[in-house]
This record gives sequence, structure tokens and C-alpha cells, in this order.
Amino acid sequence: MRATVIHAPHDIRVEDVPDPVVQLPTDAVVRVLRACICGSDLWAYRGESARQPGQRIGHEFLGVVEEAGSEVNGFRAGDLVVAPFVWSDGNCEYCAEGLQTSCPQGGFWGSVGSDGGQGEAVRVPFADGTLVKLPAAAASDDRLLTALLALSDVLGTGHHAAVGAGVRRGATVAVVGDGAVGLCGVLAAKRLGAERIIALGRHQVRTDIARTFGATDVVAERGEAAVEAVRELTRGQGAHAVIEAVGTEQSMRTAVEITRDGGAIGYVGVPHGSGTGLDLGVMFDRNIALRGGVAPVRAYIPELLPDVLSGAVDPSPVFDQTVGIDGVPGGYKAMDERTALKVLIKP
Amino acid sequence: MRATVIHAPHDIRVEDVPDPVVQLPTDAVVRVLRACICGSDLWAYRGESARQPGQRIGHEFLGVVEEAGSEVNGFRAGDLVVAPFVWSDGNCEYCAEGLQTSCPQGGFWGSVGSDGGQGEAVRVPFADGTLVKLPAAAASDDRLLTALLALSDVLGTGHHAAVGAGVRRGATVAVVGDGAVGLCGVLAAKRLGAERIIALGRHQVRTDIARTFGATDVVAERGEAAVEAVRELTRGQGAHAVIEAVGTEQSMRTAVEITRDGGAIGYVGVPHGSGTGLDLGVMFDRNIALRGGVAPVRAYIPELLPDVLSGAVDPSPVFDQTVGIDGVPGGYKAMDERTALKVLIKP
Repeated sequence: MRATVIHAPHDIRVEDVPDPVVQLPTDAVVRVLRACICGSDLWAYRGESARQPGQRIGHEFLGVVEEAGSEVNGFRAGDLVVAPFVWSDGNCEYCAEGLQTSCPQGGFWGSVGSDGGQGEAVRVPFADGTLVKLPAAAASDDRLLTALLALSDVLGTGHHAAVGAGVRRGATVAVVGDGAVGLCGVLAAKRLGAERIIALGRHQVRTDIARTFGATDVVAERGEAAVEAVRELTRGQGAHAVIEAVGTEQSMRTAVEITRDGGAIGYVGVPHGSGTGLDLGVMFDRNIALRGGVAPVRAYIPELLPDVLSGAVDPSPVFDQTVGIDGVPGGYKAMDERTALKVLIKP
Repeated sequence: MRATVIHAPHDIRVEDVPDPVVQLPTDAVVRVLRACICGSDLWAYRGESARQPGQRIGHEFLGVVEEAGSEVNGFRAGDLVVAPFVWSDGNCEYCAEGLQTSCPQGGFWGSVGSDGGQGEAVRVPFADGTLVKLPAAAASDDRLLTALLALSDVLGTGHHAAVGAGVRRGATVAVVGDGAVGLCGVLAAKRLGAERIIALGRHQVRTDIARTFGATDVVAERGEAAVEAVRELTRGQGAHAVIEAVGTEQSMRTAVEITRDGGAIGYVGVPHGSGTGLDLGVMFDRNIALRGGVAPVRAYIPELLPDVLSGAVDPSPVFDQTVGIDGVPGGYKAMDERTALKVLIKP
């Protein structure tokens, strides 16, 4: 089959690799219908996260079960399924608690020795614990299939940030980051009943999507000016709930400064940089909480799925470019250069 | 009257100062029956927090209302009252939400121009918003009066840490810091139903109190060895809820390392040091939350008071030395040299 392989920074190739097969009785093999490129893949692309030459890449996909191991009970060939961005055994204490990202047997697609999502097929460990079944009818609905793909990462991650930030009915929410996760944070905040959603972003194409998703205000300024603008919109107080979807020191600093006393920051941007951007003295004086991390999207799919199926929540607009499997390297380039927001792959 | 004044690091004096009077109609004057010295007063004593020469000091006291301004409705002369460590107007949005520490009209005892708690009397701004009435009978019960004094700071602060750490019935809790606040964190965790409470501390006098307060395990090691010990006690996982009651980089680092995936750190140690001690990468991967800050003890007094009155919760053992007003400088010295845990003042 064809799959995406990273050889070095800026060296992404699509190559012929061995077809995946069931290796353990708890495995399944999934033929990929939709995959995509994540903002976090760019860290590897830019050489800011280390990868071994030849590692697979991509961690978001949905598709059809091609083969299921003898101990897989929940799935059989032909089932339409979505995979969260980590696999998990479904049996351990952490899985039972809904923190599948801490499953001791779990792992990330594209880690050494495993398949990545940006390929024609994927061997899925612990299929029963990992995969979630989708209605077969969705396979023939192009828009819906794209929306469902967001359940593998960005929608669940935006939701995790909103939950971490303590978004409640009537809350004022601010979202730092206008990437796909930030935009899904807007969508999630709206879904959880936020009354006012302030999106921070300078790219009009993106902030237009934010408005479609429920943002009531857009702040295009950066740094201190952005902080001032959010304060002005919130009677000087800041937002009850702040979604941090970037992961740099500067974005975290902004997040702290625009949070209302007693509020919380839900952070899902993978931390990068040597410092934290957190001024603990300020957080202490103002009782600002920090809650988030790698999103256990497996736990959220059952909750979010009905709203995506009904169309009440539609994250599909975050995908603004589509490529075939051979177009993946170009897709990375487009996202790296910010000419694409999020690239959809139809292998 | 006599009151404690700080002139310079290690220069604490008890001096004659003007008697406090009602200046605004919302003021009351309280004659102090019990006050005490706080671990955070030592930051000023050691010169690590700046003070203007001649500032008053002390922020924990209870006593009897001597005079109430014309607009004070809830109190009159003779009432026994306890004061939280900040005053607050009781009318604003933040006070209504129970975050009195963020009241725009609030302030700290001993800040420039205000009385400190370590004196014979205190002018209390916004008496209706600030003070809480105690049963008159408590005045004749020496042990109870001492226990009630803990409501002004350490008990409410320990409770804030426990709430921030998300202590729930059945939880495993670890407490970093064996000072009065850490010990009150043990008490608060026990009160909230923690099943297992691991106290980290090297001073047996203190860890003995921790055991009296409900600690089920004591870890006397420090640094990496302490982390190992907590992990061993928790099947390698760490504690669901960690109370951080020190405020140094090292203690915060320990707190992060002993928190279970998906758990939370409730931090109430005033942050000191140039770094945070937070490894955001670890916190992100393991979904560890950070929640806390300066405790809105005014909000907690009504909840905690019945249990202190009934004796179900008795923080009085944290006071292990008693002085009169002229003994205050010696009390600072004793706490600085750790020969006293917490010094009670009977002016």
C-alpha cells in the first residue's frame, strides 16, 4: 500500500510499504477513507519534534474495517469506524475513567513500529478499546464523512479545552489560536452554552469560520494590544474561560492575562519553548486555574457523535483543501506556509 | 494601643500606636482576643517580601466588636467575630461569587495605612462584608477560641487547597508541606472524605500532628526519594489530589511528579522563586491540572464554622506556642528557626 513517511525535516514522502495485517488477535485492519494533516504534524515537519528517519506519520483517520482479529468482538469487516489519535486497550483503570491517553498499553499512530493515519490502511491495536462505530450510511455523505473525521482529534481536542476551561451556560469564553483546534474550541464552547465567544486571530478566512462556529467577537490584535482588547470587551475583567490552542510561551502568557479572576485556562496546544509563559504570581493572586493536556478524545466521541450526525455541530469547514495520497507532501507545504488551514486526505 | 510593626528584615517591634477609630460608617473596631503569626509573615521577616519601614503586620485575628459605624448592620458592640485575612465589601460581583480575595475594594491587613492583626485592636473596613459572627459562648472556651482563630486563614487555606486539588470521597491525597497550612490541608482532605492521605514532612512533631489530623502515611524523604516513596504507596500512579502548601520551585516540582494522571494540584503556597517548578510537558502528557491561589477564606467560614464549633474539625494543635503582645518578636524568631510551628498571640 501507499503511506506517508517522514525522512527528515521538510522531507515527507509517499511510499510503497507492506500492507498491514492482523498481528495480534485484538488487532483490526482499517482501510482509510479519510485522513488529514494536523497542526501538530508540523512540529515534526519543521524538525521541532524529533522523528526517526522512515517513521510513518498522521494520527487522524476514519475508514472501513477490512479484517478483525479473532478476539475483536465489537467490529467486523465492512464496519465504518473512526479512530481517536491514540489507541488504548479499553480495559484498564485509566480507560475506565475516560483518560485513554494514559492507558499503559496505549500509543500514538506513527510512533516507531506502528502505522500512521496518512496512508491507505492502518493496523489498529486493541480495536475494541480504540475504534468507534459510525452509521454505514455516513459513508455515502461526503460532507458528513469529513465532519466525522474531526472526531479523531480536532473536535474532541477543542471540546477538551472547553471542558478544561470550565465553559458553562452563559459564560464568556476567549479562544487563543485560530488553527483548526482553536476553531473547534469555538464550536465546543458554543455547544456547551457559552454566551459570548471572543476569538483571537489575525487571518480573516479563519476568523470568518470562527464567526460561523459561534464567535461573537474577533480580536485581531496581538500581545498587549490583544489583552487590552479582550479586557475592553469584558468590562475590564477578562473571560471566565480561556481556550489555549497554540502551545507557545507567548500564547500562554496571553491566556493568563485575559482570564478573569477565578477563571480557568483549558490548554490543548502542545507545549513548546523552554519556559511556560505562566506567571504563577498572577495566577495565584487571581485564582486562575490551568487544566488540560492531551485530549482523551476516545472518551468524548460517544458524546459528540450524535451532534455531528445530526448536523447540530459541523466542524467540516476547518478542512479547506483536499488532496489524494500523493498530494500529502504538498499538503504539508501548504499548511506550513499557512495557505491551507487543514488539509483533508482522500487516499 | 500596642501593635506589631515591621521596620526592616528581622526587625519586628511592638510599639504604642494610635487607637483605631471608626473612620467610615462601614467600619468597625475590633478588640483582638486572639491573633497569630503566619508562615507567610516570615517572607516579610526574612526580607523576601518588601515592606515599608513602619508597616503593621499580622492578618489573622478574632475578637470583640468595640464600636460599629452607623452603616454597619450586621454587628454591634460586644459581638464576638472572626476576620478573614482580607477585607472585602460584600457587595461586588466577586464577593457574590465567593471570590472575596478579588474584591476591588478589598485589601490585606497590614498593607500600608491599615492596621495589622498582631495588635490590641483593628479598624475593620466593610465590617458587614468582612466579619463573621461567632457564638458568644465561645469566648470562654480557650481551646475553641484558638480553633476558631484558624478560620481566619490556615483552615480556610488548607480547605481551598483541598478543593483545588479536587479531593473527593475515597480519593488518595498527598500533601506537600508540613507547616500549619499543609496540616490544615490534611484536616480538610479528611473532612472531604479522602481515604488515604500521604503527608510529606521530615519533622516528627509535625507529622505526628498530621497523623492526628488524618494522615494515613508519612513520607519523610525529600526530592526524588519522596517521589519514589509516594509512587510506591500508590501502585506507581501517584495521588489523585495533591496539596501544595509551600510555594517554592522544588515543592511545585515534587507536587507535579507525585500527581496521578488526570489528577490535580491545589496550590496555596505563595509562589516564590524565579521559575515555576512546573514542567508543562509532563502536565500536558498526563492531564494534570493546577488550581488554587490566595484562598477566599471569607467564603469558606460559613461552611467550616459548624464543624469547628462541634469539634468535628479541630485545628487548634497547629498552635504550639503562645505569647502575649510583647512576645511577638520572639514568636517570629521561634517560627523562623522552626522551633515553633505556629505562634498564638493573646494580646
